[in-house]
Amino acid sequence: MTQANTSYSRPVIALMTDFGIGDGDVGVMKGVIAGITPDAHIIDITHNVTPQNVPSGAWILASSYRYFPKNTVYVCVIDPGVGSFRRTIAVHAGDWFFVGPDNGLFSYVMAEQTVHAAVLLTNSTYHLPNVSSTFHGRDIFAPVGAYLARGLTEIFLELGTPVDLATLQRFEVSGAIRRGTTIDAHIVHVDNFGNLITNIPLTLLPELFTASQVSIVFPGKGQVVEKRRHFFAEGPNDGQAFIYGDSSGYVGIAVRNGNAAEILSVGFGVKITCIISA
Amino acid sequence: MTQANTSYSRPVIALMTDFGIGDGDVGVMKGVIAGITPDAHIIDITHNVTPQNVPSGAWILASSYRYFPKNTVYVCVIDPGVGSFRRTIAVHAGDWFFVGPDNGLFSYVMAEQTVHAAVLLTNSTYHLPNVSSTFHGRDIFAPVGAYLARGLTEIFLELGTPVDLATLQRFEVSGAIRRGTTIDAHIVHVDNFGNLITNIPLTLLPELFTASQVSIVFPGKGQVVEKRRHFFAEGPNDGQAFIYGDSSGYVGIAVRNGNAAEILSVGFGVKITCIISA
Amino acid sequence: MTQANTSYSRPVIALMTDFGIGDGDVGVMKGVIAGITPDAHIIDITHNVTPQNVPSGAWILASSYRYFPKNTVYVCVIDPGVGSFRRTIAVHAGDWFFVGPDNGLFSYVMAEQTVHAAVLLTNSTYHLPNVSSTFHGRDIFAPVGAYLARGLTEIFLELGTPVDLATLQRFEVSGAIRRGTTIDAHIVHVDNFGNLITNIPLTLLPELFTASQVSIVFPGKGQVVEKRRHFFAEGPNDGQAFIYGDSSGYVGIAVRNGNAAEILSVGFGVKITCIISA
Repeated sequence: MTQANTSYSRPVIALMTDFGIGDGDVGVMKGVIAGITPDAHIIDITHNVTPQNVPSGAWILASSYRYFPKNTVYVCVIDPGVGSFRRTIAVHAGDWFFVGPDNGLFSYVMAEQTVHAAVLLTNSTYHLPNVSSTFHGRDIFAPVGAYLARGLTEIFLELGTPVDLATLQRFEVSGAIRRGTTIDAHIVHVDNFGNLITNIPLTLLPELFTASQVSIVFPGKGQVVEKRRHFFAEGPNDGQAFIYGDSSGYVGIAVRNGNAAEILSVGFGVKITCIISA
Repeated sequence: MTQANTSYSRPVIALMTDFGIGDGDVGVMKGVIAGITPDAHIIDITHNVTPQNVPSGAWILASSYRYFPKNTVYVCVIDPGVGSFRRTIAVHAGDWFFVGPDNGLFSYVMAEQTVHAAVLLTNSTYHLPNVSSTFHGRDIFAPVGAYLARGLTEIFLELGTPVDLATLQRFEVSGAIRRGTTIDAHIVHVDNFGNLITNIPLTLLPELFTASQVSIVFPGKGQVVEKRRHFFAEGPNDGQAFIYGDSSGYVGIAVRNGNAAEILSVGFGVKITCIISA
Repeated sequence: MTQANTSYSRPVIALMTDFGIGDGDVGVMKGVIAGITPDAHIIDITHNVTPQNVPSGAWILASSYRYFPKNTVYVCVIDPGVGSFRRTIAVHAGDWFFVGPDNGLFSYVMAEQTVHAAVLLTNSTYHLPNVSSTFHGRDIFAPVGAYLARGLTEIFLELGTPVDLATLQRFEVSGAIRRGTTIDAHIVHVDNFGNLITNIPLTLLPELFTASQVSIVFPGKGQVVEKRRHFFAEGPNDGQAFIYGDSSGYVGIAVRNGNAAEILSVGFGVKITCIISA
């Protein structure tokens, strides 16, 4: 493999919010970052997290962060508690740094990676001079992320008071529970194609394609999905939903050339039961 | 505060349009810029301004531009008059440069900042070779913005004919009028959360949190908002709307974990009256 | 024309997908690219191509690619066949490089440009270590695009097996057929303003503004558009649709300050007949 030229390395800052893209808010955060760290490579994860849905944002981050370069700084703002007494944090976990509110947004990351340290963002030197009560993305998280992307571990402990990791907010991420041949789980994401992503890791269902039957039942809805396919183009032509292994590493449900969420009338958070017949 | 490394500084170009993001139009503008100024840092403010709504775009720009670095070039295209005899301009105001149609889009900027100079974009050297009648964003504004971001004041006066500032299109931006304890105003923006932003600067209502009562009335709608909160998480749990100080510097109306615009059936441009009781 | 400073040149990678921007998928592709080619300038064409609509994506690419710098690498993923036996390709055409599935997405490009060479993406050295069955945008196309942007022609032939150009999937792009004074055509795009773009090149209708009459008929719909205008602000005030020359180089249909697609109830793929009276 030829590497034809040496590439100039820039600090990478990845943004995820529920601000949408109809206001100037995301642009303002990037303007603040550009003023502090002009050579930052700013990458949007998404700004369309369902407003104030922390678990949904946490899952999207979980499905994304591993693919970014080492030392990427994630600035994540799904923050219904902005301005209240919820804490603001930076977390150094695995090869990356995470900045945002202390409300569970980093639950998957902290469950999956070694957490080296965390600090409360109490050092106002790294904030904008005037901090509002309603837009900490602009006033705290963007500038902290920009400084952190430049200094990394050299600056991390200057951002504020170290915090006991045991006190950080987390929700239970290993929600899918397998008892013998039954898994109780739920839908953690609906993607752009309407595919339903469950919280069943493929590793929890290693016999997905070898068991004689795998059924996903939506309790109280009377619907059962039983067909299994390796990829979308292999799906039934008649619009029936099928089970597949999603690229996120979790079990998914799709309809070929169709929108499974609409066809099944199922969305974020819906409970499912998966039954395996050897 | 440690600055761990020196950052390579790039020209910043901020884009705002009503093109949406479903076409290739915004990408094409960025492609044109990248061909002229390869090291430009291009930042989107938003491309989802309501189509052809110049006052709405003007407000979004007004709430954003102060947070970008000095010398940022703003390329703004909400341009219902494209191809007609409306003029195209570049404006040097405050620490920034603004490029777009002469239709009022820079009204807030020109009211708030010292305007150093303005030029008509008459020098076709800085345009694409073939200028269409319907896409000046691509053919005029993007290339002008790209050249301007490289040359700044050295190039500004080469872009075209200087223009008398008094002739530039502007609309009245100080629309909120206070007479004693009454303010007549209107809604200038609905954000991604459905929060209603008024055109009442917080400086025009310094007693927002100290007056015995503040009421916002929607004439002809029979609705009154009277509760006041400092941040969203402090809002009433019963879905009632409340008044708060928005991070844009204006008075806002919100519903905790809800969409005020939908709940109150109020949108852009709706008139309000604010009544203050000492 | 002054060029005030020399600009640092970066590899440009343009992305187009049907992934939408509500998931982390596009961000993940950018994270992969940033890890391989840190100085890449990544530009979004759009990620809102109608899901799995290859002809629509092909047209958006066709209306965009000419405006990007020489050597831009386009990574295009509208890929209903992902994981199946459809082939993955890189194409060197004109001054640019195109990476994506072999499903017709580059039909316009290959019809309009000299195609220098194409390769199948068979060399897994340039893919992520683990390739999923459902997200080749992340696992194959993004890393291949990132390496290609660094190495260009030096790396192109290393990406995989050369492929006979005659075997590449293409659909017919010269769909508008003129017979004397009649053109049979269809709608290839609906833009953000609801303007309808036809597949009639302006060069096929040189007398658009000089013929005594030009009518566009929607067979079976009883609607006829006959007014002609040079730009939007010139359109009739009464909401009637008019014909204009779109900036993409094709004949378009618009309504002044209105949405032609909604008003005429016409969308992607609808057939039209254009009748010219000398």
